[in-house]
Amino acid sequence: MSDLESEVEMDLNADLGEGFGRWALTDDQALLSVVTSANVACGFHAGDPATMRRVCEGAVARGVRIGAQVSYRDLAGFGRRAMDVPRAELADELTYQIGALEVFARAAGAAGVAYVKPHGALYNRAVRDEDQAAAVVDAVTAFARAFGRELPVLGLPGSALLRRAATAGLPTVAEAFADRAYTPEGTLVPRTEPGAVLHDPDAVVAQALAVAVAGEAATVTGAKVAVTADSLCLHGDTPGAAALAIRVRSALEAAGVTIEAFA
Amino acid sequence: MSDLESEVEMDLNADLGEGFGRWALTDDQALLSVVTSANVACGFHAGDPATMRRVCEGAVARGVRIGAQVSYRDLAGFGRRAMDVPRAELADELTYQIGALEVFARAAGAAGVAYVKPHGALYNRAVRDEDQAAAVVDAVTAFARAFGRELPVLGLPGSALLRRAATAGLPTVAEAFADRAYTPEGTLVPRTEPGAVLHDPDAVVAQALAVAVAGEAATVTGAKVAVTADSLCLHGDTPGAAALAIRVRSALEAAGVTIEAFA
Amino acid sequence: MSDLESEVEMDLNADLGEGFGRWALTDDQALLSVVTSANVACGFHAGDPATMRRVCEGAVARGVRIGAQVSYRDLAGFGRRAMDVPRAELADELTYQIGALEVFARAAGAAGVAYVKPHGALYNRAVRDEDQAAAVVDAVTAFARAFGRELPVLGLPGSALLRRAATAGLPTVAEAFADRAYTPEGTLVPRTEPGAVLHDPDAVVAQALAVAVAGEAATVTGAKVAVTADSLCLHGDTPGAAALAIRVRSALEAAGVTIEAFA
Amino acid sequence: MSDLESEVEMDLNADLGEGFGRWALTDDQALLSVVTSANVACGFHAGDPATMRRVCEGAVARGVRIGAQVSYRDLAGFGRRAMDVPRAELADELTYQIGALEVFARAAGAAGVAYVKPHGALYNRAVRDEDQAAAVVDAVTAFARAFGRELPVLGLPGSALLRRAATAGLPTVAEAFADRAYTPEGTLVPRTEPGAVLHDPDAVVAQALAVAVAGEAATVTGAKVAVTADSLCLHGDTPGAAALAIRVRSALEAAGVTIEAFA
Repeated sequence: MSDLESEVEMDLNADLGEGFGRWALTDDQALLSVVTSANVACGFHAGDPATMRRVCEGAVARGVRIGAQVSYRDLAGFGRRAMDVPRAELADELTYQIGALEVFARAAGAAGVAYVKPHGALYNRAVRDEDQAAAVVDAVTAFARAFGRELPVLGLPGSALLRRAATAGLPTVAEAFADRAYTPEGTLVPRTEPGAVLHDPDAVVAQALAVAVAGEAATVTGAKVAVTADSLCLHGDTPGAAALAIRVRSALEAAGVTIEAFA
Repeated sequence: MSDLESEVEMDLNADLGEGFGRWALTDDQALLSVVTSANVACGFHAGDPATMRRVCEGAVARGVRIGAQVSYRDLAGFGRRAMDVPRAELADELTYQIGALEVFARAAGAAGVAYVKPHGALYNRAVRDEDQAAAVVDAVTAFARAFGRELPVLGLPGSALLRRAATAGLPTVAEAFADRAYTPEGTLVPRTEPGAVLHDPDAVVAQALAVAVAGEAATVTGAKVAVTADSLCLHGDTPGAAALAIRVRSALEAAGVTIEAFA
Repeated sequence: MSDLESEVEMDLNADLGEGFGRWALTDDQALLSVVTSANVACGFHAGDPATMRRVCEGAVARGVRIGAQVSYRDLAGFGRRAMDVPRAELADELTYQIGALEVFARAAGAAGVAYVKPHGALYNRAVRDEDQAAAVVDAVTAFARAFGRELPVLGLPGSALLRRAATAGLPTVAEAFADRAYTPEGTLVPRTEPGAVLHDPDAVVAQALAVAVAGEAATVTGAKVAVTADSLCLHGDTPGAAALAIRVRSALEAAGVTIEAFA
Repeated sequence: MSDLESEVEMDLNADLGEGFGRWALTDDQALLSVVTSANVACGFHAGDPATMRRVCEGAVARGVRIGAQVSYRDLAGFGRRAMDVPRAELADELTYQIGALEVFARAAGAAGVAYVKPHGALYNRAVRDEDQAAAVVDAVTAFARAFGRELPVLGLPGSALLRRAATAGLPTVAEAFADRAYTPEGTLVPRTEPGAVLHDPDAVVAQALAVAVAGEAATVTGAKVAVTADSLCLHGDTPGAAALAIRVRSALEAAGVTIEAFA
C-alpha cells in the first residue's frame, strides 16, 4: 500500500434497529459486520427498547460506534413526514431519545452514544430549516450539559444543521451517499425525480469508490462533481441491503481505503 | 425541640409531571414546594419530554430529589392496567425510561436520577409478581452497569420488589401512604373495598402524623398497626392535592418531624 | 319577534371530547347544553373511545348534532403541528376516524355522524394546501361510498377545503369565530400576531352578535368587515369556556337569533 | 363427487393486514387468494388505515369475507400481552375498531364487516376471563345497535367468549387450528409447552384434513380427539405461510372438501 493510499479512510454508517416490537426491518446483525458507525433508532420512528439493547450489544461486540438516530415522534409514518414542531419542543423530544440510547450504549459496554444523526424527514428538513436545525443542536448541547461530552453531528455537507453545529462548537461529520444521485451542484437529486436513487449494485459500488478515493461523484448529466465526505451512508432497509453493503466495503478495501470510524 | 424529636425524619414523595402534551394533571410547581422527592413520569404512562425537563428544572431549583416513576407503556390507560409483559422485555422498557430521565435530570443540574419507583399497575403488580419485580430490579441493575450508580428502589414494605432489590444489593426505601387505609396486617386496603382511600383532609393529616411520629396507622377496625416508612407518599393528581400536601407538611413540621429526602 | 328577526338563525359549534384516558380537557356536559353541533375528537389528537361514546350519548340526549373532528395522528402535539402527510395516506387516516365515530353516534341513537370538521393544524393547512384539502374531501367521499350519506364539511369561508368540497358536490358550512380577530380582508389574524385572540368576554359576546345579526366583525383597525357564517365556533378548552359559551348563546337569543343546527 | 363429500364444507381464515406503516408482516395479497375469511387488523395491535383499505379492497375483489380482528391497544407488544382492561373500557375500545373497519369494508364494496375475532392475548384471555369475553360481546352488541347487524363471533370452541356470544343471541363460529397441537381433552397445548406448534408442513396439512374430513385431531399422546370446527385458522405471519396455506387448501379440495365462507 502506498503512502497516498494509506491516507484514505472512510467511515461507513447505516440505519439499524429500525424494527418495532413484532416488526423487523433491518438485518442488524449482518450490517453490524460491515459498518463502523450504527445509526440506532431511538423509539420515535422505530426502535423498541429491546431492539435498542440488542443493537448496542451487537455494536459493542463488533467494535462498531453507536449513534443516536433521532426523529420526529411518528411511528405510523416512520419519521418520513415533515412536522412543524416548535424548536424548544423538538429539542426536548430529541434530547429524550439520545438519553434513552445512552443507557443502553453504556450498559452494553460502550463509552456512550458517540454521535447524533437526524432521521428521515427531520434530516431533510434540517438541511434548510434553521429552527429545526437549531433544535438538533440544542438537544446535543443539552446532552453535553448533562454528560460533559460534545457529540459530533452527522449530516449533509452544506446543510444548516452542520453549519449551526459547527458554530456551536460541535464536531461535524459530513456524509455522502453511495446510492443517491447527485446534481452538478453537489446536492442530492430529490427523491421525487427520476434516477434519484441508484438501484444498480454496480453503480452503487462505483459511486462509493468515486467518493472515497477520488472525492467526486458522477452526476445525472454525466459530469463529475466534488463530494467531500467523512462517512459514507449505506442503506439497510431494503432487500439485499446487507449483501450490497458487504460488496461496497470489500470494493473500498480492495482499493486501499481504510474502513474505520470517523475521527 | 427535644433530642428525641430531632431524630424523626421523613421524606415526602409525590407523582409529578403526569400530564402529556396539551393535557396537564398535577400542579407540579406547587408540589415541588412541598415534597423532598419527585416521582417524575417518564413518557410511558404520562410525561412528555418538555414536561420532564421542566419538572427536573423545578426540582433542582428547589433542592428536590428526582426519581424515575417508571410504568408500562400505556398512555391510554395511564399505566393503571396490569399487563403481562415478559421480564426481559419489561426490563428494557423500564431501562429506557430511566435513561430518558437521566439526561433531563443532569442537564437541569442534578447529579442524575436519584431513585426509581414503579407507577400504577406496575407498582401493585410488583408487590407479589416475582417476574415483574425482578424486571424492575433488572432495569436498575442495567442502569448501574451504565452509570456506576445503584439507584434506591422505592416501594411497598414487604413487597417482592423491595425484597428482590435488597437481595440484589440495591438500597430500598419503604413508603407509607397518608391517604390509604391499612388492614390489621399492615397492608393496604384494596381500592375496590369501601374506605380504601381517605378523603377527609383531617384524617389524612392524622395518618401522616401517626406514621411519621408513632410509626403506626389506624386500621379500618380501629386498632392500630405498626407501619415503618422512610418516605410518605402524597397524591398530586386530585383537586386540592397541593393544598392538602402543604397541610400535611406543616403538621409534620409542627410536630417536630424533619422533612428531608431519605438517606 | 319580528319577521326580520325570525329569519336570523345560527349554529353554535364547539370542540368536545378532547380529553384522552386519564386526562380531561373540555367540560363536555356543560358545553353540550349550549351548542347545537359538537365537534367530537376521534382518537388521533384526543378522544379515547370511552369519551367518544359518552359525548355521543350526551349529544343525543340533548339533541346536539355529532360531527367528526378529524386530525393528524398526533396525540403528543394535540394535532397542532402541521404534518406533510401524502394525500392518499391522509385520506385513509381521516376515513378511519369518521368510521370510528359513526358506530358510537349510531349506537347512541343518532342517525350517524352529521358533518366533518378538521382539527387544529389540519384545519389551518386545509385553508391553502390543496393536497390536504383534497384528502379531507376524499375521506368524506369514501364515507359517502360506504354509507350513502354526503356529509357536510365545516370550515373557513374562502378556504381551499370548502371550495374543493363544493366542487365535489358536498354541502359546505362556513364558520366564524367569536373570539378571533379578523383582518380587513375578512381572514383571521394569525395567532402569532398580538391581538389575534379575543380574551375579553364582552368583546367575544359583541363579536358573536355582530357576526350573527349584522354579518360583520370589527377588525383590528377598527373598520368593519363582512363575515358570513352558517355556524359560530365557541372554544371549549380554556378555563371559563363553558360559562362564556352560555353568555354568548344567551346574548344571541336575547337579540332574537334562533340557535339551531345548520340546515 | 359423492353426496357425502359434497356435504363437507370448511371456512379458511387467516390474520391479514398485520403490518403498520413502514412495516409489513403478512403477505396479504397471496393469502387473500387462499382464505375465505380475512381477519383484518384494525389499528390497535397492527393495521394502519391505508393497509386496512387495501386489504378490504383485495378481499372484495376476491370474494373474501372481511372480519374485524380486534385487539388490546398495544402496538409495541403486537397485542400479545394480556391486559387488565375493565369491561366497559375494553368494550368501547373494541367497538371503535369494528367501526373503523366498517367504513373501509363498505367503501370497498362489501356489505360491511362480516364477523369479529379477538386477536392474540385477548383471544386467549376471552377463553376463560368472563369479563373480557363479555366486553367482546358488548362491543358486538353496540355495533348491532348501531348498524342493525348481529355479527358472528369467531373463537375457540368451549370458550367463555362463544358461550356468552350464544347466550346473547349472536351467531358463533368455532375454529380449529391446522398448526397447533391438541390435548386429549380437545384444548390447545399451551404455547409454552414443547410441541405446541406444528412446524412440519406435512403435519399441518394432515391435521387440516383430519379436522375437516374426520372431525378429529391427533393429540400429543398419539390418541385422537374430536374437534368440531366451522372454520380452520391458517397463520400468515411466518415465512412460507402463504405457500403452506395454499398447500392446505389444495389438499382439502383434493379430499372433496368445499372451501367456502361459514354460513
